[in-house]
Order: sequence, then C-alpha cells, then structure tokens
Amino acid sequence: MDGLSLAIVAGVLSLVFATYLANRVLNADEGTERMKEIGAAIQEGANAFLKREYTVLAGFVLIVFAVLLALGYLREEQSPETAIAYLVGAVASALTGFVGMRIAVKSNMRTAAAAREGLNKALRVAFSSGGVMGTTVVGIGLLGTAILWLVFEDAGIVAGFSFGASSIALFARVGGGIYTKAADVGGDLAGKVEAGIPEDDPRNAAVIADNVGDNVGDVAGMGADLFESYVGSIIAALALAATATAFVTSDGSIENLYILPFLIASVGIVASILGTFIVRTGETANIGSLLWSLRRGIFAASILALIGSFGAIYWLLEIESSLGIDKVWQMWGAVAIGLLAGVVIGISTEYYTSYEYNPTKGIASRSVTGPATIIITGFATGMLSTVIPLVVIAGAVLGAYELAGVYGIAIAAVGMLSTLGITLATDAYGPVADNAGAIAEQAHLDPEVRERTDALDSLGNTTAATGKGFAIGSAVLTSLALMAAYAKVVNLEAIDLLEVSTLVGLLIGALMPFVFSALTMEAVGRAAQDMVEEVRRQFNEIAGLREGKEGVRAEYAKCVDISTKGALREMIIPGLLAVIVPIVVGLIPFLGAEAVGGLLIGSIAAGSLLAITMANAGGAWDNAKKYIEAGAHGGKGTDEHSAAVVGDTVGDPFKDTSGPSLNILIKLMAIVAVVFGSTFVS
Amino acid sequence: MDGLSLAIVAGVLSLVFATYLANRVLNADEGTERMKEIGAAIQEGANAFLKREYTVLAGFVLIVFAVLLALGYLREEQSPETAIAYLVGAVASALTGFVGMRIAVKSNMRTAAAAREGLNKALRVAFSSGGVMGTTVVGIGLLGTAILWLVFEDAGIVAGFSFGASSIALFARVGGGIYTKAADVGGDLAGKVEAGIPEDDPRNAAVIADNVGDNVGDVAGMGADLFESYVGSIIAALALAATATAFVTSDGSIENLYILPFLIASVGIVASILGTFIVRTGETANIGSLLWSLRRGIFAASILALIGSFGAIYWLLEIESSLGIDKVWQMWGAVAIGLLAGVVIGISTEYYTSYEYNPTKGIASRSVTGPATIIITGFATGMLSTVIPLVVIAGAVLGAYELAGVYGIAIAAVGMLSTLGITLATDAYGPVADNAGAIAEQAHLDPEVRERTDALDSLGNTTAATGKGFAIGSAVLTSLALMAAYAKVVNLEAIDLLEVSTLVGLLIGALMPFVFSALTMEAVGRAAQDMVEEVRRQFNEIAGLREGKEGVRAEYAKCVDISTKGALREMIIPGLLAVIVPIVVGLIPFLGAEAVGGLLIGSIAAGSLLAITMANAGGAWDNAKKYIEAGAHGGKGTDEHSAAVVGDTVGDPFKDTSGPSLNILIKLMAIVAVVFGSTFVS
Repeated sequence: MDGLSLAIVAGVLSLVFATYLANRVLNADEGTERMKEIGAAIQEGANAFLKREYTVLAGFVLIVFAVLLALGYLREEQSPETAIAYLVGAVASALTGFVGMRIAVKSNMRTAAAAREGLNKALRVAFSSGGVMGTTVVGIGLLGTAILWLVFEDAGIVAGFSFGASSIALFARVGGGIYTKAADVGGDLAGKVEAGIPEDDPRNAAVIADNVGDNVGDVAGMGADLFESYVGSIIAALALAATATAFVTSDGSIENLYILPFLIASVGIVASILGTFIVRTGETANIGSLLWSLRRGIFAASILALIGSFGAIYWLLEIESSLGIDKVWQMWGAVAIGLLAGVVIGISTEYYTSYEYNPTKGIASRSVTGPATIIITGFATGMLSTVIPLVVIAGAVLGAYELAGVYGIAIAAVGMLSTLGITLATDAYGPVADNAGAIAEQAHLDPEVRERTDALDSLGNTTAATGKGFAIGSAVLTSLALMAAYAKVVNLEAIDLLEVSTLVGLLIGALMPFVFSALTMEAVGRAAQDMVEEVRRQFNEIAGLREGKEGVRAEYAKCVDISTKGALREMIIPGLLAVIVPIVVGLIPFLGAEAVGGLLIGSIAAGSLLAITMANAGGAWDNAKKYIEAGAHGGKGTDEHSAAVVGDTVGDPFKDTSGPSLNILIKLMAIVAVVFGSTFVS
Repeated sequence: MDGLSLAIVAGVLSLVFATYLANRVLNADEGTERMKEIGAAIQEGANAFLKREYTVLAGFVLIVFAVLLALGYLREEQSPETAIAYLVGAVASALTGFVGMRIAVKSNMRTAAAAREGLNKALRVAFSSGGVMGTTVVGIGLLGTAILWLVFEDAGIVAGFSFGASSIALFARVGGGIYTKAADVGGDLAGKVEAGIPEDDPRNAAVIADNVGDNVGDVAGMGADLFESYVGSIIAALALAATATAFVTSDGSIENLYILPFLIASVGIVASILGTFIVRTGETANIGSLLWSLRRGIFAASILALIGSFGAIYWLLEIESSLGIDKVWQMWGAVAIGLLAGVVIGISTEYYTSYEYNPTKGIASRSVTGPATIIITGFATGMLSTVIPLVVIAGAVLGAYELAGVYGIAIAAVGMLSTLGITLATDAYGPVADNAGAIAEQAHLDPEVRERTDALDSLGNTTAATGKGFAIGSAVLTSLALMAAYAKVVNLEAIDLLEVSTLVGLLIGALMPFVFSALTMEAVGRAAQDMVEEVRRQFNEIAGLREGKEGVRAEYAKCVDISTKGALREMIIPGLLAVIVPIVVGLIPFLGAEAVGGLLIGSIAAGSLLAITMANAGGAWDNAKKYIEAGAHGGKGTDEHSAAVVGDTVGDPFKDTSGPSLNILIKLMAIVAVVFGSTFVS
C-alpha cells in the first residue's frame, strides 16, 4: 500500500474513532428534566447561531468561489480547480466546526449528569467530547488534503483547500469570539457586578448565551483554527517539496517528499488515538493528578509519534529512496524539533498562566493596590511571556532549516501538529466541563457535583491556556512555511527590506494585527454593552426575576439573539480586511509581490507577539482571580477580589477574541498570498 | 560664508536665544516664601537625581568609550576617533538634559507666581522655559554635529556622537520615566485612592517626588529623546549622501549633499525662533485660544522653514551645483513630506487623545460599566490610533524615497525635526504648567491662580500627547534612515527575509519592544509599590499628618529617595539589553550582519506600533478622566470617576515610561548597529 492510501486509511480511522467517541457521549445519561431543558436551550442557541453564521458565510464563500473560478479561466497561471478546492475546504471546515460544536453541546449536560456519579466518569464524558472534535479535525483535514492531492497533484490547487478552511476559520474565531465574550462580559457586568448574583445564576438572562458562547467560540472556533493550521502545514510542505534539493533520489524524484507530510500526519493520528486511551483518573483525583492524566496521554502520543515518524521517514527515505541514514536523521530531526517546540511552548504558557507559579501569583498579589496595578502587572507579564515562545520558534525555524531547508520548516509544523488529535481533545474538553458546571448550578444539583465539575473546569482553564499557546506556535510555524511557499509561487528571489516597497509592506503587515485586535475588542465592547442593557431591562421589567420567584424565567432567547446579531455584524469588517489587504498590496503597482512578502512577515512577527501577550495576560488574569477565590489575599467578596475581577474582565476579549483571532489572521493572509500570488505585480 | 559656518552660526544663535529666554524666566518673580520653599525642595530632588543618574551613566559611558577606543586601534575598519565623538555626544546629551531640567525646575514656582497676575504672563514664563529646552537641544545638537563633521569629515566617526547621545537618552528616558511614574502612581494610590486626599495635597509624602518626576522624566527625558532624533537624522543623511547618485554635480561632487542637512536644520532654527515670538494670548483666553496661540507659533515656524529650506536647497543644488530646478523641487519635496508628516501625526494624536473628540469621549462613556470596559476600550483606541501615523510614515518613506532615494528618507527626517526648537518648546512647557499648579495647591494660593494653571496644564496635556506622537514619528523615520545607513556601512546588498537568519533576526527584533516594555512597566510597578508603602507608613507614624495639623510636614525626601533608587536600579537591565542585543546578534556566526538588518526592522515595526498604542491609550485615559472631572458622566466622586482613575493609572506607565522609551530603543539599536557594524559577521 502506498503512503497516500495509508493517509486515507488513517483519516477514515480517525473518523471511525470519532464516531465511537461520539456514541460513548450520546449513550451517557442526560440527567434530570431540568438539565435536559437547559441543555436543549443551549443546543438551540448554538444551532441557531451556527445556522445564521454559515448562511452569512455561504454568501462570502460563493463570491470568493466565483472570483477564483473567473481568475482560473482568465489567467493562465491560475487553475480553475483552485476554486473547487476552496469550496471543499470551506465546507470541510464548516463541517468540523459543526460536528465539534454539536457534540460539545450534547455533552454539557451529560458531563454534569456523570459528575453526579463521580469524577472519573465525568472526565471520560467531557474528554470523549473533546476527542470527537480532535479526531474529526485531523480526520477530515487529512482526508481532504490527501484526496485533493490524489486528484490534482498540484500544491497550488490544494492551497485552495487551505484558503477555504481559513476563510471559515477566521469568521468562526472572530464571530464565535465576539459571541462568547459579549455574553460573558455583558452577563458578568450586569449580573455579578451590578446585581450581585453569582456566576451562572439562572436569574441572569445572559446565562444561556454565555453557555452557547463557550461552545461556538471555544469549541467551534478553536477547532476551525487548528483545522486550518493542520491543513496549512501539510500544504506548505507540498508546495515546498520541490525546494528540498538535498533529498532528491538518484533518479531525480521528489515524490516521497510529497508523501512524507501525509505519512507523518497518519502516524500522528494513530499515536493520538492510542494516547486517548490512557486518559483516565481515580475517584480521589485532585487537580494535579487530573492534569497529569491528560498530560500522560499527550506525552505518550508524542513519544509514539516520534517513534512512528522515524519509522515512516526511514521507510520513505532509506528503503524507498536509498538516501542514506543521515538524511533520515535530518528529516526526523525537523519533525522532532516541531513536536518538541510545541511541548515547550505549552509548558511556558502554563508557567505564565497557572496560579501554581510565580507570574500569576505576582499578579494576584497586586490586587492589594487595586485594579490598576493588576492590569499593569498582568499586561507586563503577558508581554514578558512572549520571550520563550518566540525564542523557541526562532530556534525551531533555524534548526529545521539547517536540517532540511524551508521544506524542513513545513515538516516541523506538520510534526508539531501531528498529535493534534489528542492536544485538541484536551483543549476542547475545557468548555464542556465549564458548561457542565453551569448546568449543575442552574439545575440546583448537589454541591458535591459542582465541586467535581469545578475541578474539571479549573483543569480546563490550564489546558485551554496551553492549547492557545500551542495554537499560536503552530500558526506561526505554519504561516512562515506558507510565506516560503508564497515566495516560491511568485518566484521571488528575495524579500529585500532594502527595497522601500518591501519595507512599507512590512510596516502595513505589522499594523494589521493592531487594527484587527482593536476592531475585535471594540466589537466585544459594543455587543457586551447591548447585553448589559438587556439583562438590566429584564431585571427591571420582569416581576420577581431578581428575587428568583418560583416559575419566573428570564428571557434567555433575547440575549442569545443579541450575541448572535452582534457577532455576525461585527465579524464582517475584520474578516474582509484580512482577505482584501494582501490582495490590494499585491496589486498596487508601487508595492507588488515583494511588498506582500514584507506584509506577511510583518503580520507574523507583530501578530504572534500580540497574540501571545493577549492570550497569556488574559489567562493569567483569569487564574489570578481564581487564585484569590481559592482563598488568597482574603478570598471572595474582598476589594482584592473585585480588583481581580476587573483583570479577568479585561482579559476576556484579550484571550478569547482578539488574541486567538490573530492566529488565523496571519495564516489567512499567508494563504491568500499563496492563492492570489500569480496575479500580483512583480 | 559656506553652509557649515552658517550652521555653526545658527547653533550659536540658538544658544544665545536660549540664554535670553532663560534670563526672562530667571528674572520673573519667584513668589511667596512658601512657594520658594517648595520650589527649592523640587530643585534639590531633581538635582540629586540627575547627579546620581549621571554618576551611574559616567561609568557606563567610560566603559563603552574604552571599548570603542580599543576597537578603533585593533580593527582597521573602525576609527578610534569614534570613541571621542561618542564621549562628546554623551556629554552633550547630558548637558541638554541638565540645562532643560534646571530651567524647568526654576520656572515651576515662577509660573505659579506669574499666574497670580494673569494667564498671559504665566503662559509666557512657562513657554519660555520650554523654549530654553527646545533651543538648547537644537543648538547643541547642530553645533556638535557640525563641528565634528568639520573636524573629521567622516559619517562613521560622527555616528559616535549619535551613539553617545542615545545611550544617555535611553537611560534618561527609562530612568526618568520610572522615577516620575513610581512617584505619580504610588502617590495617587496611597493618597487619592486610599487616603482620599486631593492630588498634589502637601500631606502626601510623595508629592515632591511627583513634581521632581515631571521635571526629570517629561523635560529631561523628552529632551534627550529628541536630541537623539535630531542628531540621528542629520548623521543618517551624512552617511547616506554617497548613495544619492541622482544629485551628483557635473564635476562628480556630492559635497553639497553633506551641507544640506546642516542648512535645513539652520533654517529650522531661525524659523523656530521667529515662531516663538508669536506665542502669546489675551487675558480672557480659554483652552481653545491658548492652544491656538501655540499652534500659530508652530504653523508659522513650519511655513517659514518650508520657504527657507526651499531657498537653501535652491542655493545649494541650483546656484552652487547647477543641478536644475527639477532636482531642487525633488529635494524640497522630501523636506516638505517630512514636515507635513510630522504635522499630520501630531493632529492624529490630538484627535485620539483629546476629549474634544469622539475616541476619548467614547472611553469616558464606558465608565458607566466600570473600570474593565474603560481599559478594554482605551486599549482598543490606542491600537486603532496606530493606523494614521503608520500609514503616514509609510507614505512619507515611499514619497521621500521616490524623490531622492534613501538619502531622501533621511532628509525627510531632518525636515520633520527642523522646527524642533519650537515643537519641543510647546511640549516641555507642559510639565512646567503642571508643576505650577501643584505649587499653587501646596502653597494654598488663591483658587483663581489654580484655575489659570489648570487651563495651562490642560493645554499641556494636549501638547504633551502631540509631542509624543511627533517623537515617535521622528524616531521611526530617523531609525529607518539609520538602518539604511547601517546597510551601507556593512555593505549589505540586501536584507533578505528569505534568508532564515534575517527572519530570525526580525523575530528577535520584534520581540525586543515587548520585553523592554514589560521590564519598564514592571519596574514602575515595583517602585510604585515601595512608594505606596512609604506614604502609608508616614500617614500611620507621623502624628497629625493625615489631619493636616499646622506645622506637621511629611518627609518628602524619603519618597524622593525611593524614586531615585528605584529608577537607577531598574533602568540598568533594559538599557543594557538595547546595547548588547544588536551586538550579540551581529557577532553570532549563524546570524550576523544581515540578521541585524532584520533585527532593526523588526524592532522599528513592533516598537513604533507598541509605542503609539501605549502613548495614545495612556493619553486618552488621562483625558477621559479629565473629561469626567469636568462634569461628564456625573463628575468627580462618582463610580464613573473612580473607573476613569483606574484607566488613568494604567495609562501612566504606558504613556510616560514604556511607550516613549521605545522611541529610543529603536534608535539606539540602529545606531549601535551603525557604530559596531564593521565588526559583525557577514
């Protein structure tokens, strides 16, 4: 069997495993009537949002499809087939988002129900749900790229798939991010701060919108983001294979270099599935042992992937191509560098955002002098936390390049993402646990249940932060590889910063993440304001709501509607900017193709730094608050706690809207350049 | 008389005018005994700080001097004379800082005294004090560069002058910035927030340290920063003259291109002095007419500079070199682009930070939902405010390059900075007005006096924000020109981003401003914490202080000491980083000279964006608070006001420490590369 068939088998296997996990979730107990009712409301809101979002996006996708088709027929350099790949990519990305979100929504109440029986059972349900997302993303991603490659055997065309995926991803991240934070921030301000009722209290009209947001933002958004990185890294490797002249076989073929990324991805899928079986915990587990059980799964998968990819590379480069063991080690080195870089970035993120360590404790300690010092220190911590990831990425790029050229950089990205099946599972599990807790609160379950879901949730915060670090790291590596692919597509000999046009491109590129973040943060601000006003209105107008009178319900659907409309309205401009700017820069005569090269680098450099700063500052503020809630500096109800809540609220759009959207911004701009490159002025 | 002699005459003229202005300030009435006493305390604190700061820096300067001397004797490519130029630059920068600070300190109380008699008189004193700083900076800057050029006629050697100036500037900005904000933030937190006493209340032990800080941070720091830009732009033009092949005379000479920057600077000095005479106002002036009187001065100076520089260019290029009128227009175009860009950036900054306009009003309106939304919106506004400056700079670079090559970029920078004599005067006037108000408060002067100083201060906030925008804009243009000069020094054919080493250099360069900002913000946080504890201690231990009992004085000197020690301790690491990183990157074999090119661009792009974001967010928060204090959203004492105070406090280190320090970071890294370039691995 050849490598590509193997990839298809691995993709199918992944989807079969996803189905198995999905069944495990669906067969679990749904809980009490009240829980089912809440679950249904969340499900309804999430479905409604995704339906409306996809309707809007369908229009956008069709326009781009038409443009690509027209370009394909008008210009010799461009294939009309790219349009088809684009469409497939968009649909595939939408599908993974839909599947992941749907199963997450269904597992919220089931996790809460399982938590009535025990911690381990709840972990299994929540983690299975995350696993569905993880294995669906890698399964569809690998299948899609492998089949398109089989059909077209042209990296330029298959790049359309990545473009389709990233268009959807951008809107999903931005839209989902705005949705979830409008509900979260607005709900907190109106409920926790103004009305003084607890988080997740059913009297708060925004509570269901908040739960929906966790699913559409953190699950569907994150899934679409990493789907994009996953396929982007494979496609970058395909586009760069021809440059890896050191690995040409004696008969002049580089065929095996086309197969290699698929094979590494396949190995990673198998490793991830095996790793998944290891994740379980005892009944008396504390947060440390819970975290360890997830980590054991990831570490096991990483080691298996390392071993397996060595085998795959040995087979391809030594047995099939007789390139010698040195080349095998070199190529494997690039894979190992990628995998290792991902792990180190994850650990660094955890260090900076978990309250087990000094940085977050330091932020919490500033609560004694009020919110301003919390903000200053948190922001400084976020900026400082960029050092390790950036140095690791720079080192990985240097190392992978040294070993296998620019192709090596793409392969390092593939390596980093190879175990995505399980890393994404640990990440997507978080919002499920979070919502399980919310349901337990709303359904007035036993406090012991809430304690268990809180343990799971708290762990989810750590895995979410780690996941964000990983998402940024992989985005940078992928987009650097795509940038190299772009240079190849447009035959750039150099991206020379002594050319003023390149320099100007770079400045504009660096400007993009700032504008983009400003727009998305403002969007959250506006939508949250609408939310605050609606929650207030309901408290004032619905008699008995504030007092929690039996039988009086808040009008949850109105808040769901506000978040939905806000997200859809606000995602358009930033989304279009990301697509249009690279094209405009490429088409302006005194800028052109080389300036686009500068644009990409500028956006990658500034975008990654800003993304890490925002994600980690946000994560650290969140956990500084949790640290105080756990009893430090006086605990809940003190001025210190209020100060920490301000930090947490500022951090919300930082870590869940603007920061993560930047990952996709930099990838999307790179893939737009790859796809439209042939039309640019040179 | 030739151009260089003219420059020396202009430089001397500037210093003569500075002396005239200084005498005007010193001859003004010093006020009551109590005012003199407060003034003396501020003066003492400022002198003590500068003395200690310069002692620390002397050690640093001598080490660098020795290194440069050794390199000069060891390496053929490097001249030992660079070391001398370095020493002169460091001394010159320290001297301007000292003069500006000294006169500012002396005019604090005199402005307060003059405000007893009327608004116009107070404006004249405060503005004269700013004028001393402005004309001293340009006078010494022009004299220093012109004399060194006369003596050595070597841009490489004269670059040492710029290096000396920027070493001092960096420490002055960082040290001064930490000093002033430790006192300001710490004093506000302990006094305004905790003890509930008004700002500038003499019971607050940090009040004198705060006043000292305004002088050492905003006056001396800002002066050193722009001194550096001023000489840097001239030196970049000298270094790039040889590249302006389109302007070579028929006998193959480019001599006139060496003279040109000096001549434009000379014209600018005369224009600035003339502009200064226009700044006056009527007794019934409101903030609008006050602002207009300053603006009239700047606009008049700009127009005069435009006309004069046309004359100068016509004389040099047409009469002396017979290059034709087209070349004259081209070169003048570059000057005009620079001047215009500076004005537009100033206006944009004002739009984003003044409460006359929507952005700041929008931030203030978020106060109803508490501090978190103020922070989110303010930060988003800061990020959005980068668009106009960056696009203007990008446009200016493109335009100037189109007209006169990379030399044109340097000339645009010289043009932008030509009227520095007056722009810096309007800027340095702000802290003087601020402190005059503080003295009026502490000396219990008539409320009418405080009203007048408040009007001046409020105007000072606007000019300070505009000045910061201008400082960043000129820093970017200057450092881009220096980067081009660097490429010439090391004979780089390209700074190619497709080379992995350049890419890695760029990532590290972009990382630098983030690390640097994190370190400086944390430094402020730590020093402010010490300050809070000291003020608290005094309230608790000094009987009668809190109640304001007659004859009970706070121990101001202790707080001055805390700020001084904090600033000196905390400025070392960020300062050294800026000098060492470019050298290390240049010396590492797998990075080297081209990677340093990437490093510079990365730092310029990320640094300018972050600097503008921080400066404008900080300015907008400050003015949003002032807007509320002026009566919007309920005015002082409301929750809205408290929320705005949080924004203002967060903004303090943003706008007065970290943001402005980045200007110097990017210039210093560029000049370090120019000076040490010949030792780098290629």
